Amino acid sequence: MKTNIKPADGKLGILIPGLGAVATTLIAGVEAVKKGISQPIGSLTQMGNIRLGKRTENRNPKVKDFVPLANLNDIVFGGWDVYSDNVYEAATKAKVLEPGLLNAVKSELEVVVPMKAAFDSNYAKNLTATHVKTGTRYELAQEVMNDIKNFKEKNGCSRIVLIWCGSTEIYYEATDIHSSLAKFEQALLDDDKRISPSMIYAYAALKLGIPFSNGAPNLTVDIPALIELAKLTETPIAGKDFKTGQTLMKTILAPGLAARSLGVSGWFSTNILGNRDGLVLDDPDNFKTKEVSKLGVLEDILKPETNPELYGDLYHKIRIDYYPPHGDNKESWDNIDIFGWLGYKMQIKINFLCRDSILAAPIALDLALFSDLAKRANLSGIQEWLSFYLKSPQTAEGLPPENDIFKQLIKLQNTLRHLMGEDLITHLGLDYYQELVDSL
Amino acid sequence: MKTNIKPADGKLGILIPGLGAVATTLIAGVEAVKKGISQPIGSLTQMGNIRLGKRTENRNPKVKDFVPLANLNDIVFGGWDVYSDNVYEAATKAKVLEPGLLNAVKSELEVVVPMKAAFDSNYAKNLTATHVKTGTRYELAQEVMNDIKNFKEKNGCSRIVLIWCGSTEIYYEATDIHSSLAKFEQALLDDDKRISPSMIYAYAALKLGIPFSNGAPNLTVDIPALIELAKLTETPIAGKDFKTGQTLMKTILAPGLAARSLGVSGWFSTNILGNRDGLVLDDPDNFKTKEVSKLGVLEDILKPETNPELYGDLYHKIRIDYYPPHGDNKESWDNIDIFGWLGYKMQIKINFLCRDSILAAPIALDLALFSDLAKRANLSGIQEWLSFYLKSPQTAEGLPPENDIFKQLIKLQNTLRHLMGEDLITHLGLDYYQELVDSL
Amino acid sequence: MKTNIKPADGKLGILIPGLGAVATTLIAGVEAVKKGISQPIGSLTQMGNIRLGKRTENRNPKVKDFVPLANLNDIVFGGWDVYSDNVYEAATKAKVLEPGLLNAVKSELEVVVPMKAAFDSNYAKNLTATHVKTGTRYELAQEVMNDIKNFKEKNGCSRIVLIWCGSTEIYYEATDIHSSLAKFEQALLDDDKRISPSMIYAYAALKLGIPFSNGAPNLTVDIPALIELAKLTETPIAGKDFKTGQTLMKTILAPGLAARSLGVSGWFSTNILGNRDGLVLDDPDNFKTKEVSKLGVLEDILKPETNPELYGDLYHKIRIDYYPPHGDNKESWDNIDIFGWLGYKMQIKINFLCRDSILAAPIALDLALFSDLAKRANLSGIQEWLSFYLKSPQTAEGLPPENDIFKQLIKLQNTLRHLMGEDLITHLGLDYYQELVDSL
Amino acid sequence: MKTNIKPADGKLGILIPGLGAVATTLIAGVEAVKKGISQPIGSLTQMGNIRLGKRTENRNPKVKDFVPLANLNDIVFGGWDVYSDNVYEAATKAKVLEPGLLNAVKSELEVVVPMKAAFDSNYAKNLTATHVKTGTRYELAQEVMNDIKNFKEKNGCSRIVLIWCGSTEIYYEATDIHSSLAKFEQALLDDDKRISPSMIYAYAALKLGIPFSNGAPNLTVDIPALIELAKLTETPIAGKDFKTGQTLMKTILAPGLAARSLGVSGWFSTNILGNRDGLVLDDPDNFKTKEVSKLGVLEDILKPETNPELYGDLYHKIRIDYYPPHGDNKESWDNIDIFGWLGYKMQIKINFLCRDSILAAPIALDLALFSDLAKRANLSGIQEWLSFYLKSPQTAEGLPPENDIFKQLIKLQNTLRHLMGEDLITHLGLDYYQELVDSL
Repeated sequence: MKTNIKPADGKLGILIPGLGAVATTLIAGVEAVKKGISQPIGSLTQMGNIRLGKRTENRNPKVKDFVPLANLNDIVFGGWDVYSDNVYEAATKAKVLEPGLLNAVKSELEVVVPMKAAFDSNYAKNLTATHVKTGTRYELAQEVMNDIKNFKEKNGCSRIVLIWCGSTEIYYEATDIHSSLAKFEQALLDDDKRISPSMIYAYAALKLGIPFSNGAPNLTVDIPALIELAKLTETPIAGKDFKTGQTLMKTILAPGLAARSLGVSGWFSTNILGNRDGLVLDDPDNFKTKEVSKLGVLEDILKPETNPELYGDLYHKIRIDYYPPHGDNKESWDNIDIFGWLGYKMQIKINFLCRDSILAAPIALDLALFSDLAKRANLSGIQEWLSFYLKSPQTAEGLPPENDIFKQLIKLQNTLRHLMGEDLITHLGLDYYQELVDSL
Repeated sequence: MKTNIKPADGKLGILIPGLGAVATTLIAGVEAVKKGISQPIGSLTQMGNIRLGKRTENRNPKVKDFVPLANLNDIVFGGWDVYSDNVYEAATKAKVLEPGLLNAVKSELEVVVPMKAAFDSNYAKNLTATHVKTGTRYELAQEVMNDIKNFKEKNGCSRIVLIWCGSTEIYYEATDIHSSLAKFEQALLDDDKRISPSMIYAYAALKLGIPFSNGAPNLTVDIPALIELAKLTETPIAGKDFKTGQTLMKTILAPGLAARSLGVSGWFSTNILGNRDGLVLDDPDNFKTKEVSKLGVLEDILKPETNPELYGDLYHKIRIDYYPPHGDNKESWDNIDIFGWLGYKMQIKINFLCRDSILAAPIALDLALFSDLAKRANLSGIQEWLSFYLKSPQTAEGLPPENDIFKQLIKLQNTLRHLMGEDLITHLGLDYYQELVDSL
Repeated sequence: MKTNIKPADGKLGILIPGLGAVATTLIAGVEAVKKGISQPIGSLTQMGNIRLGKRTENRNPKVKDFVPLANLNDIVFGGWDVYSDNVYEAATKAKVLEPGLLNAVKSELEVVVPMKAAFDSNYAKNLTATHVKTGTRYELAQEVMNDIKNFKEKNGCSRIVLIWCGSTEIYYEATDIHSSLAKFEQALLDDDKRISPSMIYAYAALKLGIPFSNGAPNLTVDIPALIELAKLTETPIAGKDFKTGQTLMKTILAPGLAARSLGVSGWFSTNILGNRDGLVLDDPDNFKTKEVSKLGVLEDILKPETNPELYGDLYHKIRIDYYPPHGDNKESWDNIDIFGWLGYKMQIKINFLCRDSILAAPIALDLALFSDLAKRANLSGIQEWLSFYLKSPQTAEGLPPENDIFKQLIKLQNTLRHLMGEDLITHLGLDYYQELVDSL
Repeated sequence: MKTNIKPADGKLGILIPGLGAVATTLIAGVEAVKKGISQPIGSLTQMGNIRLGKRTENRNPKVKDFVPLANLNDIVFGGWDVYSDNVYEAATKAKVLEPGLLNAVKSELEVVVPMKAAFDSNYAKNLTATHVKTGTRYELAQEVMNDIKNFKEKNGCSRIVLIWCGSTEIYYEATDIHSSLAKFEQALLDDDKRISPSMIYAYAALKLGIPFSNGAPNLTVDIPALIELAKLTETPIAGKDFKTGQTLMKTILAPGLAARSLGVSGWFSTNILGNRDGLVLDDPDNFKTKEVSKLGVLEDILKPETNPELYGDLYHKIRIDYYPPHGDNKESWDNIDIFGWLGYKMQIKINFLCRDSILAAPIALDLALFSDLAKRANLSGIQEWLSFYLKSPQTAEGLPPENDIFKQLIKLQNTLRHLMGEDLITHLGLDYYQELVDSL
């Protein structure tokens, strides 16, 4: 099986639309790890182990030692932004990482200078962009493709992946122009405003056969036109919305409650954050995009239609408030009203003092590395096994998404085992109790 | 496959050593459910669904409709206690359930009168027992066997299971007398104090081929002598310690953190509760038994030896405080110190306003029903697939326990699928993306 | 001094516009207390003590034994509402009190039937009123006065007080028509929409010389016209907004932080509640009224203009979310970002699982009793000493309000001591250390 | 009045037994403030204002501009410790302050080198002292007096104060040898082990007429012998136990609940901290001293004997756990079970993420400055007006302590007003409503 995966030779270029808090934290971190002064905690590809074979075999290699991923030393970063700050300057303004750490990788960060962004201020009104391309949507797409090709050549990359780390766009739904590749390409020519900036980047990447992952809750590659293009160019896509903070906790906890058949009557979630993301989400139109992405997970996990006595009356409410005193240190508070035996009520309160970009950066890294692996393994189109990283995972049409993070993890791990020709794990384990099995 | 499982014909007697808060909540609840005035929330066997086949098949029967379990209407309850209160009186004193509910099943509860307990006050000094058997340990075991036989005959039961719902015993470890059945039986004759009361019940049950489950953290059936006896009489055993409240949350959350390769430097857990369990645990000797049971789960899930950078320095501390104002309304508070990308620190606080017996009762029910199923399916000895319900699950010698509740759930579900001849589920799911699979 | 206070002879009628959750909880409670089956916890007048003289004198009478208040047994309740439910029915729907308690005072509650309300749906759009008076604002005021007189006569009351327990009205500010009594009375005749329903009740009461207290955040008696009328008819007024829950906690905690010169950079407050009040506040126009009332307290206590280094950058945000699963069981969560020595940051989180009406009812009682006392003691106009009970206390023009609950308490207590001719307390206490004093 | 206070001319030496986390944070902070690179937040003397006269006068000077305190620039620090590290080294190990700040005042801190400590390891078994004096208790006292005199001369100080910042000693109670100065001095000569190390410092200071404040919960100056000595030498004393963190919150919140006549049935308080203080308190004998100091405050504020219906059944429990992951970042969690109108239950949870030494340092500074003021103002013996800073304030025999922080604040402020000849403030304020007053 492994012979089908092309090796990870040469340099991998990771190109990022949106060099804000998440992207600069990712880049600074990878550079620090390369220098041996820090560790890529939170990255499954770098720090995680995977069990192979039976429990008693004690085979638990690191994921990066099991599947042929690009080595961190072979990564080159680039990207686009609506501000012209280089990554050192942008990271300093983002105030996620300490000055001491940033200074240790200053020279590596200063050379990463953003290319001008393809932008439309209607999609993020709270931003004042100063470093943008001009032209019709068709021209912007061509320019982005040129940017990619130039970057690849200039940096001697053998492969490129794109990962959207830009702001959340305002809420929109798919329309007729998004329904097929032909219509989408016509709309590009028409400079149709319904094509969002993130779609321009996705189109450019997929057209070139370059994997694209979407870290924000906007539709982007979730539209038929771009799924069609991904199939056509045999390119992996993964979307959407990095699963960090509160939703991460929700997709950990809700499966646990469901496992025990505990009822849930209400789930109130509030967030406070004070970074640029918080500022953008202070606009109700942008918040709605995020809200839709966050709301779905509970229904998908708890399945009220299958369990009406337990989840039929669930009241789920999500709030995000811009709160400057916290900066990037996002804080969430959840109140969960559950009920157990005979309907007796209980409550769970979770207060998560997290750091938005610290949680997102390793996810961005893993998606970049795994989408590159997928490309080399000839996996194209929707990569459902990457749902593990995403708030609102893309699936084949008609297939309900799996938001349960533990099912997502097994899916990811069994996909890796499958790719490498290892036995899938079912946790049945009756063979450890041989005499029992014999008696069956 | 299903043909190998004997049908659940006739009445099932559930006999419980320890008719305190948990047991009376269980009994009152089952009676209320039988009358249609309440629902067995929190019971996987009664309320839970199990997915069969592919996601697109939409086969999600209730567990009780999938495997041949005893029907609640066929259950008869009995038990032993150190106080002579009948179950109505004991439930009233436990103050878990509302008077209105208890009165609705008063006549059913009043007829459940405890048999005298096999007790040794050295194992629970904070209790003042008034309703106990006398005699040597050997004689006590004989009496318990007689109690079981009489109960079975008197109530016309076709099958019996035992489930320990008594208090936590003081801390002890296995010694030579626990190392083989022969030595254990000699020690019974010698009235050796190292045989704890719970072991007497377990011995009596297993000797009669009756399944035994252990809801407390004492060793009980976790000793070689009784494992040997279980094999000899082809009897299922399951231990130990009902997984409720804080440990339940811990085995939900810790796998989530580990899944994401997030580091954990500290986990502080405190509990306050004011019921009889809290009173018993106020004695440091009894608390130690509980502490050992609770401490293990994190190490088993996080595996510091495999992931020293993430979990090597984990400081785990557990406190339980007796706090009368809360009664049975146990409350836990956890502070979890985690670290992510580049070592940056974050904190999670969980405040669980739970109800001890409300969470435990459905677990006791499921263990009773599943251990009866196991017996009928010729599964004997340690039932690792029931780990899902237990804080400190028993495993085959040399096999590390699985404390991750999601692996436990898959194990349980795949065991049921296996018993019923259904395909095991791996969550690989590549076949939903047919063209991808074809290309592999 | 005491001789100046007229005795509390005869019956006191407490008339309440708005017989919802708060009012019905108040009425049911007072009836239960009269019957000796419950206690008026939370009422300073009934349960509180007041220290008199020096600490060593040990004189700590109950407030009700110190000042001549109306006895609970002499109270008769009545009121107006936009629904025709009697108080028993309304209390049952409010779901604040248990059915058992309500049934014990059922006959007392059923006889309290609301009079038709003076209402204007523009002031509370989320309510569907079905039990309202018709007519111009002038006619409504006349009708309310007739209602009051009829009630007084029918029930044989010697004195009446009014206390507004209706919903929060939409946000409005004082205009020219509110600036003098003459203009206000002309506006009544003109049926000017800028006169809110609560003002009609206040006008009617004050015109008759009847004390009026305002439990909601609408302006009502906070306008020059009605202050003028209160002086004219020598009537006490007290406003506005019962200080319960989160704001109560805020005015307890903020003075503590200020006392220690600890800085505050941010205070985020969120509330979830599911009663009718929550429903009304789900309308942004009504929420704004509440928000303005709640926002002021921190600035008044922390005084950023006097302490710019400590409080100059304070970011204060308040949220209220309608959350039906909790009903009347309001829950608040606060995150407070403070800083200490050398600017080091700390955080305080407060989670208050409170009950809205349970906290408000005794405040309504005390305001009723104290405003009656004020009337008998010839205290007329603004009663600043009742600020203790109010989120947004009324003061003489140009005088900053005191929101610090401890200063408010001293003010209240010293006012009572002053009325009764007792020494004011300064807590100087040097005289306990006589030799020190001698040496000064 | 002011003429009676001697001016604060010349240098003030602050000598500290125990140069650990609190003392080094204090010293580093004062040096940083002197250099203008930081601010003394949390210090009432430096940052706090005091209102003078009527509200409308707008006289709110800083405390330091109102009373004649020593100027920070005139302060010289010294002290004793059981380790020989200079203050720069000790502060670095304490990990309270950032390296950047410490380096900015490195030269000022390095010159503060501890004198050898008077120590007895029986009083703090978890410490391994390496820098101690030898000799009998009498000899140790003489040496400490010599240390003080030498320090004063060498540094050209006009005045000295001592403030205990050492560890909590094990629990002990006053015995006969502590009952009079004569017996105490004989016990010194006898090298009686019942004289604790902290008493030796206190004796030495008082013998020289030097004010002594006690930041730990050991008795120290709370014994008749040393009170007698303080009177004899006309020296101010203040004890005991800096009021920081959880107890600070408790004495803020409890008065608020009591003000509103809300009942309290339980108060559970737990703390986790990982500094040297936490290590010492991990010894049950030392914890008991702290526990006794912390337990008293609730009873004193709530007065269960006066309010049995509200506070008669209060269950108060306090825990402190050593938790290394948090270092000096002490965290407390409180659950408070309250009840209101008709006995309905509510809960308050407080989670305080504080910093132990950051909260304590400004208290130590204020106590030093105010005890120096007291000396110059001829206030001698117990300084009850400094209760504001202390968990377990000392009072005249037979006088119950005031733990309510707001009464303590008024006492402090009115004492300052009294010393400076300003009107005491009663918050009566009726004169703002002149016409009302006239009518009385």
